[in-house]
Amino acid sequence: MTLTLALAEKIIDGTRLYAAENNIKPLAVVVLDAGAHPVAFKREDKASLYRFDIAMAKAKGALGMGFNTRDIAEKAKNNPVFFASVTAINGIELALSPGGNLIKDANGNILGAIGISGDTGDNDELCAQAGIDAVAAQLENL
Amino acid sequence: MTLTLALAEKIIDGTRLYAAENNIKPLAVVVLDAGAHPVAFKREDKASLYRFDIAMAKAKGALGMGFNTRDIAEKAKNNPVFFASVTAINGIELALSPGGNLIKDANGNILGAIGISGDTGDNDELCAQAGIDAVAAQLENL
Amino acid sequence: MTLTLALAEKIIDGTRLYAAENNIKPLAVVVLDAGAHPVAFKREDKASLYRFDIAMAKAKGALGMGFNTRDIAEKAKNNPVFFASVTAINGIELALSPGGNLIKDANGNILGAIGISGDTGDNDELCAQAGIDAVAAQLENL
Amino acid sequence: MTLTLALAEKIIDGTRLYAAENNIKPLAVVVLDAGAHPVAFKREDKASLYRFDIAMAKAKGALGMGFNTRDIAEKAKNNPVFFASVTAINGIELALSPGGNLIKDANGNILGAIGISGDTGDNDELCAQAGIDAVAAQLENL
Repeated sequence: MTLTLALAEKIIDGTRLYAAENNIKPLAVVVLDAGAHPVAFKREDKASLYRFDIAMAKAKGALGMGFNTRDIAEKAKNNPVFFASVTAINGIELALSPGGNLIKDANGNILGAIGISGDTGDNDELCAQAGIDAVAAQLENL
Repeated sequence: MTLTLALAEKIIDGTRLYAAENNIKPLAVVVLDAGAHPVAFKREDKASLYRFDIAMAKAKGALGMGFNTRDIAEKAKNNPVFFASVTAINGIELALSPGGNLIKDANGNILGAIGISGDTGDNDELCAQAGIDAVAAQLENL
Repeated sequence: MTLTLALAEKIIDGTRLYAAENNIKPLAVVVLDAGAHPVAFKREDKASLYRFDIAMAKAKGALGMGFNTRDIAEKAKNNPVFFASVTAINGIELALSPGGNLIKDANGNILGAIGISGDTGDNDELCAQAGIDAVAAQLENL
Repeated sequence: MTLTLALAEKIIDGTRLYAAENNIKPLAVVVLDAGAHPVAFKREDKASLYRFDIAMAKAKGALGMGFNTRDIAEKAKNNPVFFASVTAINGIELALSPGGNLIKDANGNILGAIGISGDTGDNDELCAQAGIDAVAAQLENL
């Protein structure tokens, strides 16, 4: 299965709806396919300039390591020397903060990832999860 | 004036509507603000992987040189050595093909740029222009 | 569908069998998945050092542009200024020579690509095609 | 002596056999020659995307420093500032975790290195050693 543009847009819409309802700061939101290539991206007005790069690095990092960035950040606390060395490798992007979540179908196959930056890591992650939840029914049928 | 996400999305929608009506190949479309930072991006299903990078390089190139990429590509034909040297500069992205168009308000101020890749350069440019035309009334009032 | 390691190895074996039977020079052969990530790679003894990078660039280029590198090289002859500018974009790899071929299933969906460097571009391409032919029956059933 | 493709494949096969028998997570495995150039690479199905880069960085790091990555990571714990500065040098790849092991002949000459990523560093290293052990008799006679 590939993650279509239509699905990616619904995920981003779900994210932004949650953000609007919960008074979240302006977000940058990106959805990548399983190969870590961008499908759709939106930067809300007033989001600062690095938000795009950080959102990308969260989504790429989740796909690169195979875990949500919350879990990766947790591991990194116990092994900072390894993660410092890995993030210095040319081509590896990995923002060690919540807000990069894997998008999976009902069988656990990875379809892609969402990456968000703009508010706290915890809030970024709530928005990411809200986006994925908004297409839960469709992910079941993929 | 800044180019809002709402405006960027209308431009991309206008682009995609034109593409669908004219049997254009799957496109990658990006809208950048005046500082060459991404506001919105969409990659249509089946567009190949480098389309994102090429669309970005068209839009950045237009902003970087201050002309639509059609005009820059024309200049490059008469001075290939200079442009080969410029595009080799680290950090400079400039895809020498039509499809990167400046977005201006009624006074000629640059608000941003659209970059498109997926079909021929000529078709990419028609799509870019269609997207800008779709918000012509709004650009007049900015 | 994803391109499994088992399939990638059969493709590389088919390539090397053809090369051995046809007195081809030592090859570097890589198979990438649809997202342009390496699945398997082999460098035959005496293949020179850049062969790995060139084989990678052929396979990535085919996936990035959506055509076999023979077709891309043909287009590049008519538009050298554009292709010189594109290959200078950071992150884009695109070796303009035959030997980077798309791997598709029976429905035309792209599963990945094979990239080969070691002999002439024409011979590299014959080897690439031989590898894909070796799994033709499996590609039909994917 | 050079590390042949045939030998590299036996090392990778030995690694994968051990991994299959010990319920190890999907691995990326690379074997480099003494010049740190890739001889063979395999990524098992479901291994995440950065595993290739991390396996490469382990093998390159072992060759680059002249020790197995377990020993380098141990040194790094006592001198994190030096290793942070080294890994930030452009061109240096060095993943500070076990799983990058030197391949030596019976006289202690370095023939190359194996790098593995996919499971814990400890398990990656067990797999790396199993691969080298699988060709121990041949390494004696080189």
